[in-house]
Amino acid sequence: MVAVDALTVRSSVVSLTLLLVTVTSVSAARDPPYETRYFHQYLDHFNLASHGANTFKERVLVSDAFWRKGGPIFFYTGNEGPITSIWNEIGFMKDLTAKFEALIVFAEHRYYGESLPFGENTFARENMGLLTVEQALADYAILLSNLTAVFCQDPDVCPVIAFGGSYGGVLSTFLRLKYPNLVAGALASSANVYMSAGLTPGNELFQDVTEDFRRYNPRCPDRVREGFTEMERLSGQGKQGLLEVSSRMNLCSPLQDRADLVNMYRWVREAFTVLAMEDLPYSISNGPSLPAYPVNASCDLLLKATDGIEGIIQAVGMLYNFTSDLTCFDLHQDFVPCADPTGCSLMPGAKAWDYQTCTEISLLESTNNVTDMFPPDAFTEETRVAHCWERWGVTPRPGWLATQFWGKDLSPSSNIIFSNGDLDPWRRGGVLQNVSSSIVAMVIEGGAHMMDLRVPNPADPQSVIRVRQQEADLIGQWIREATNQRE
Amino acid sequence: MVAVDALTVRSSVVSLTLLLVTVTSVSAARDPPYETRYFHQYLDHFNLASHGANTFKERVLVSDAFWRKGGPIFFYTGNEGPITSIWNEIGFMKDLTAKFEALIVFAEHRYYGESLPFGENTFARENMGLLTVEQALADYAILLSNLTAVFCQDPDVCPVIAFGGSYGGVLSTFLRLKYPNLVAGALASSANVYMSAGLTPGNELFQDVTEDFRRYNPRCPDRVREGFTEMERLSGQGKQGLLEVSSRMNLCSPLQDRADLVNMYRWVREAFTVLAMEDLPYSISNGPSLPAYPVNASCDLLLKATDGIEGIIQAVGMLYNFTSDLTCFDLHQDFVPCADPTGCSLMPGAKAWDYQTCTEISLLESTNNVTDMFPPDAFTEETRVAHCWERWGVTPRPGWLATQFWGKDLSPSSNIIFSNGDLDPWRRGGVLQNVSSSIVAMVIEGGAHMMDLRVPNPADPQSVIRVRQQEADLIGQWIREATNQRE
Repeated sequence: MVAVDALTVRSSVVSLTLLLVTVTSVSAARDPPYETRYFHQYLDHFNLASHGANTFKERVLVSDAFWRKGGPIFFYTGNEGPITSIWNEIGFMKDLTAKFEALIVFAEHRYYGESLPFGENTFARENMGLLTVEQALADYAILLSNLTAVFCQDPDVCPVIAFGGSYGGVLSTFLRLKYPNLVAGALASSANVYMSAGLTPGNELFQDVTEDFRRYNPRCPDRVREGFTEMERLSGQGKQGLLEVSSRMNLCSPLQDRADLVNMYRWVREAFTVLAMEDLPYSISNGPSLPAYPVNASCDLLLKATDGIEGIIQAVGMLYNFTSDLTCFDLHQDFVPCADPTGCSLMPGAKAWDYQTCTEISLLESTNNVTDMFPPDAFTEETRVAHCWERWGVTPRPGWLATQFWGKDLSPSSNIIFSNGDLDPWRRGGVLQNVSSSIVAMVIEGGAHMMDLRVPNPADPQSVIRVRQQEADLIGQWIREATNQRE
Repeated sequence: MVAVDALTVRSSVVSLTLLLVTVTSVSAARDPPYETRYFHQYLDHFNLASHGANTFKERVLVSDAFWRKGGPIFFYTGNEGPITSIWNEIGFMKDLTAKFEALIVFAEHRYYGESLPFGENTFARENMGLLTVEQALADYAILLSNLTAVFCQDPDVCPVIAFGGSYGGVLSTFLRLKYPNLVAGALASSANVYMSAGLTPGNELFQDVTEDFRRYNPRCPDRVREGFTEMERLSGQGKQGLLEVSSRMNLCSPLQDRADLVNMYRWVREAFTVLAMEDLPYSISNGPSLPAYPVNASCDLLLKATDGIEGIIQAVGMLYNFTSDLTCFDLHQDFVPCADPTGCSLMPGAKAWDYQTCTEISLLESTNNVTDMFPPDAFTEETRVAHCWERWGVTPRPGWLATQFWGKDLSPSSNIIFSNGDLDPWRRGGVLQNVSSSIVAMVIEGGAHMMDLRVPNPADPQSVIRVRQQEADLIGQWIREATNQRE
């Protein structure tokens, strides 16, 4: 473990409080032990007066279990959730860390987990403004410049590699674009950089969810469509019809109106999306418990059921009732409408994510029942504006993220791996073609969301094993190049 | 002239107000005519809630006098002053514009000129926080993404080249580093990027001022030293001595104490610095009127004078009394102490510049009377902190600019020209060696501050003519590459 009193500040010659403080040791099950640290960050990196000069504590998990002094730093750019959960999910990075004798650092994203800038008032409207991608990246930049000062004899000799999955991969990418002085390269797994910036058509996500089911058995999407058609028919019969839908869908509270019905459709759609994202060849229990190949398993249930509605409830039950102990489904427990069309939850982090998708991050994915199996549901900029204004009093800034993070022209950067599983419905939001000789796309055949970053499993297909090897080779090359360049 | 109603917004599908509005036509003397436009910018690009969503009007000068549709956009990244004055000074860019049939755009920096975010209350402490390099660059980025949408059939086909001198050159550089999606290259003249980020030793500026005088005649710095030594001797004799110094220096108000004396020394130092910066082979009258080769001219006065003090007052009079009609010198008129050791003035922009050097921009240049000809005057981080806290209630963030803008490792970028005159005392704050094959340093022999960007003059030496030609060649290459890449 690294001594706390070694943690002094590199750049601050005045009496600022950018110090790593407070250590509590925690060790996870099959992982290397880590220390939990808290780093004082400025509230506002871009307003140097007023409250911007105040600080909050950002949670950072650090492990030197494999570290050789002078070795690289592997830095996970935390995304929308408690960093402790993310730590448990990201297994491959730790295997790599052992190989490269790296220091592991997992930084928590502001407004998530314990890194709440305004404590219990963090999610009050008036306190949300400082939740932006740019502020989060600046947090990571300052943390990194302090980390290298603390952990390297010469601050310039420990190359940093950024890692991230999903939105975390978007952040790793952006960190490499904007701060190549701090990170020598980035592994961005399932990073929907183009979708987040509003640069994709908006009908691909749910189309690809549908395709995942069709690929296993073309009758599955048909069954889902059949179920939705029947629900539409029943609901057209008024109150009684809604009651029957509620009853057959085993809802705890009956649907009151069309808005409720639409919300329930989205709740169903979310479940199918998660089953497709998590379509792994092994069972998981970090978060919801799912069997191996949940798409296949739920598709089997769909086809075995007496009709479409019954099939749908069996399939979504695999996710929402994975403990098999629910007597009915409480929509509001599982699904809160938000500016992410796949829905949010009741978790505090979901509020922050709603805010992010209400401001910078664009996820305008719709369904049309033609290219996908779900009821038509157009999520337009206007729908988004209405929700965001009502919920947060803000108006989205479409175009801003593309202006800020280079849109579709990432070629001026270098040393980025974009990995995507070809079963992951988010993949078309990201980079699927090589951008240049050093910005490369890797596709994991049969791979789900963030599959390469997950804890390696005996059931892993050769494709993911191969991609991980290619990633390790490239990361090794980046480290060698960065080290040579600096010598 | 371009019709105003063509100016619609590219990225904003909601009813935001990012529109170019209000046109007043103005034409400068020997320049192409320009239109003055006002572009609605967000107050805060990095806090999407609260007052950040409000806007202010940024002044932009636009000329399509030479423009061929589809041609490049030449974009001047405005620095610390009214953009109209800068327009008059930057002559070479307009020559280039004619050559390349470019659209000319000069954008005013927030908090300067007419681009005051809070109107007449702009310089109140509580309103200063949004004056940062990052906010100014984001202003330029959003402006550019709107400009290309308006002026190009296909927004992606008009390459933008950024131009800037001095702090404006720092901004051009940073714009290319952080927004290569928007600018294909940058000509950064006399851009003290390293000094601004606090990465230079801090004793070079005034050493090089001294060297400029020594180069003409080694007896000049000796004369200056002699004058300061005599002032020190006299002031050591108490009130009467201070009175004698005041009288011999022809001050309107007598010096009261040591603090006044030190301030007067700085006022003198500032004059020598300006004479060295503006050491051009022709006379100028944009701002103060100065003769050709003012270093030589003032040095001659120094040597002709009866003693050192008389010599100093003759030399500084060349700047402060260029109209030759002052009966005495009013220190406070010419020189206001600030966090820029070369001093600020009574101009409103000087307040903004003081604030910038109190927060992000580091200009910790000292004198020691050993490597330079001025009285020892250490400008330390502590001195800076004390001034900034008292004046603005802020504490500088040393290290931040280097973290944010890549410190001394600019090599991940490309297509930047760093030009510097070898007589310019600011040059060692910038990039004097090639960084890579496409980030190149050009030195103008016998060149002063921003000499290449100025209005070409028959007295220009071959060196600046040659550098301008090299710059034109490279810019032409960038435009061709950007155009080919996009086709």
